[in-house]
Amino acid sequence: MSNSLKIAVAGLGTVGLGTLKLLREHGDLMERRCGRRFEVTAVSALDKNKNRGVSLDGFDFFEDAAEMAAKANCDIVVELIGGSEGVARATVEAALRASRHVVTANKALIAVHGTQLALKAEANGTTLAFEAAVAGGIPIIKALREGLASNGIKSIYGILNGTCNYILSRMRDEGIEFQAALIDAQRMGCAEADPSFDIDGVDAAHKLAILASLAFGHQVDFDNVHVEGIRHISKMDIHLAEELGYRIKLLGIASKNENGIEQRVHPCLVPHATSIACVEGVFNAIVAEGDFVDTLMLEGRGAGEGPTASAVCADLVNIARSFDLPTFGIPADQLKAVNTTTMDLHKGAYYVRLMVVDQPGVFADVAAVLRDNEVSMESILQHGRLPGEAVTVVMTLHETEEICASRVVDSLFNLDGVLEKPVMIRIENL
Amino acid sequence: MSNSLKIAVAGLGTVGLGTLKLLREHGDLMERRCGRRFEVTAVSALDKNKNRGVSLDGFDFFEDAAEMAAKANCDIVVELIGGSEGVARATVEAALRASRHVVTANKALIAVHGTQLALKAEANGTTLAFEAAVAGGIPIIKALREGLASNGIKSIYGILNGTCNYILSRMRDEGIEFQAALIDAQRMGCAEADPSFDIDGVDAAHKLAILASLAFGHQVDFDNVHVEGIRHISKMDIHLAEELGYRIKLLGIASKNENGIEQRVHPCLVPHATSIACVEGVFNAIVAEGDFVDTLMLEGRGAGEGPTASAVCADLVNIARSFDLPTFGIPADQLKAVNTTTMDLHKGAYYVRLMVVDQPGVFADVAAVLRDNEVSMESILQHGRLPGEAVTVVMTLHETEEICASRVVDSLFNLDGVLEKPVMIRIENL
Repeated sequence: MSNSLKIAVAGLGTVGLGTLKLLREHGDLMERRCGRRFEVTAVSALDKNKNRGVSLDGFDFFEDAAEMAAKANCDIVVELIGGSEGVARATVEAALRASRHVVTANKALIAVHGTQLALKAEANGTTLAFEAAVAGGIPIIKALREGLASNGIKSIYGILNGTCNYILSRMRDEGIEFQAALIDAQRMGCAEADPSFDIDGVDAAHKLAILASLAFGHQVDFDNVHVEGIRHISKMDIHLAEELGYRIKLLGIASKNENGIEQRVHPCLVPHATSIACVEGVFNAIVAEGDFVDTLMLEGRGAGEGPTASAVCADLVNIARSFDLPTFGIPADQLKAVNTTTMDLHKGAYYVRLMVVDQPGVFADVAAVLRDNEVSMESILQHGRLPGEAVTVVMTLHETEEICASRVVDSLFNLDGVLEKPVMIRIENL
Repeated sequence: MSNSLKIAVAGLGTVGLGTLKLLREHGDLMERRCGRRFEVTAVSALDKNKNRGVSLDGFDFFEDAAEMAAKANCDIVVELIGGSEGVARATVEAALRASRHVVTANKALIAVHGTQLALKAEANGTTLAFEAAVAGGIPIIKALREGLASNGIKSIYGILNGTCNYILSRMRDEGIEFQAALIDAQRMGCAEADPSFDIDGVDAAHKLAILASLAFGHQVDFDNVHVEGIRHISKMDIHLAEELGYRIKLLGIASKNENGIEQRVHPCLVPHATSIACVEGVFNAIVAEGDFVDTLMLEGRGAGEGPTASAVCADLVNIARSFDLPTFGIPADQLKAVNTTTMDLHKGAYYVRLMVVDQPGVFADVAAVLRDNEVSMESILQHGRLPGEAVTVVMTLHETEEICASRVVDSLFNLDGVLEKPVMIRIENL
């Protein structure tokens, strides 16, 4: 092997071009740091002639990324196409078949096929690296797999989707509803034209599945992540949560309890005073709780050309430095299947908002529902008292099993004076 | 080399015992993660028979840590004694002479002798690792040297001393003066009986010198860190800063500008809305600004048995995984001497508090001083108006060179109506 590491880049979108730019600008710096030169030998994209503002001269060009992965003159294939199937998957599989190292920013691919791909890479003795797949520029994979290697991890959670965090931040700051904040996010370039992947929590769930596997040493199991998005969050709930001392965030949370592993993505109320509540706008943040290190939080940019290219190139530097460790922290053939718990068994506190008619007996009925379900209330807040106007009642419930909280909500909805389906949002007292 | 890595631990204080505990509890987990067993073969402490609540049976005991480092049956010497000279230095030097790997939590030693020690380790081909020396459990060395390896670093700054951050948090929360908060910190076990090392900024300066070396690729240069502590911070300044939208934090800041490298530790005003302002109590946090990754913050526990042991053992796992990279990110013989700037050339904004007698002409005099020094004011705040009472006047100055701001303060002190030396605190608009 010559001193230079040859790289083939599949996908010339924002991150692909950012990676080329970084390698051009910091090639010397990276060589000083790892003793190897990086040389891009081949690139692949759908349209060679699209104007990208950079010359592709000097690179072998492939229309078919999988063909490039198999045939290009390279040591490392960098996959920046995206998607769990199709060309991206074919490219990574072709690269592994050809015993090349793979660096990818593809969270969907790793979340769905991570274990199988890791088995292949480890059988080859090559690297499958994906720092850029989770939280962009934040080196959370490295922190978990190496920095916290001597800890038992109790839980890992975070703000894993910048689009959702931007929308929720705007809703609070501007007092606007979800739709208006989404349109604003699209105008600002922090939401896609079709935003469902982000706002329905799927993107965060992909990242959470990867983090959970690293934290707990199990096979990546995206299918068992409980996923809810933020479409149903109203400015009223954001405002009432503030009044109660909470901020609403979309969190991905993986934790271990007596029933097994919980993996969930959903909006939740987090106390104002916590560090994660202070993470605003497009920023991402991940908190790991280790039994020795205690609480560790990493915060940074979870997307974008520069931060994602930074993570891709950190993986390249690792390969150049011959850092070799199991893809998910322990050898892939030792990863166990996940022992997943169901959300019914989840224990937590809850925010419940009711719209009620202000008539005698309503509160007695609400109280009776709580009593009958053996659920106790921590606080109650009432708003709105104009004649004929519905009254907003917000309760926070003490820790209970989710199945009980859900029963409470169903029973409340059946009460005479309750006007619409109550809103229930989980509270995370982190 | 057998499959197990043999470890000699020098120093059985809090961190030493924590490290033994971690290795006992998580030996199996660490072996799964790095494929090697860790075996403590020798320990050293001043008094063998002190009751530590753990048995030292099975370890070779040495009263002289340097002798242990030279003679014990071990691959790695873990130095947890502390101090830049004396036994700690002798131990590390003996270990390097014997071509053993060294893991240390000793910030003073690395800040003062880091470059020389790195040269020796690299000449040996052994590792000198010090993740635990900076910010306890936070894997900031790994993040900087590896996670951000493909970035040019523009600045690195942070809350590097938990004692100071605890004291400043208490002063604000309880409205108490420095002395009362210090006594409280001592009672809570987060300040030493002799607290000067922490509260005068020396500890933070040690850590900053190490971070700056990693960030900018120069020789560690503790002597050129500008250091101020927090003894002179009053509850009045904390309160007034809050009113202006700032929080007072002791930060260590290293940055690069046209004059060279600035390394400074001092109290400063940081805007409320920044993530670092939200870091409270004994927590530490470090922010790195890279040209591709943008802003990255890591927050966690900067001291204590568990977090520090976590960092020590992360270094052990790196050694077991044969991760080999230059001590300060680039080979030690390529580290340049620092091109240090002086604080006079520092450009920044300033908070200036005056106590003045409320007599005609004082404000005109103050305004004239600013005009004559070509410094402009951003905002002004006035408090206190009881008959005969001094008036508190707080100004924030727009960005200027420190030499100008200092001249302003000296001139203000010379004014007739100004009762005491004005307080000047730097503002960091991060």
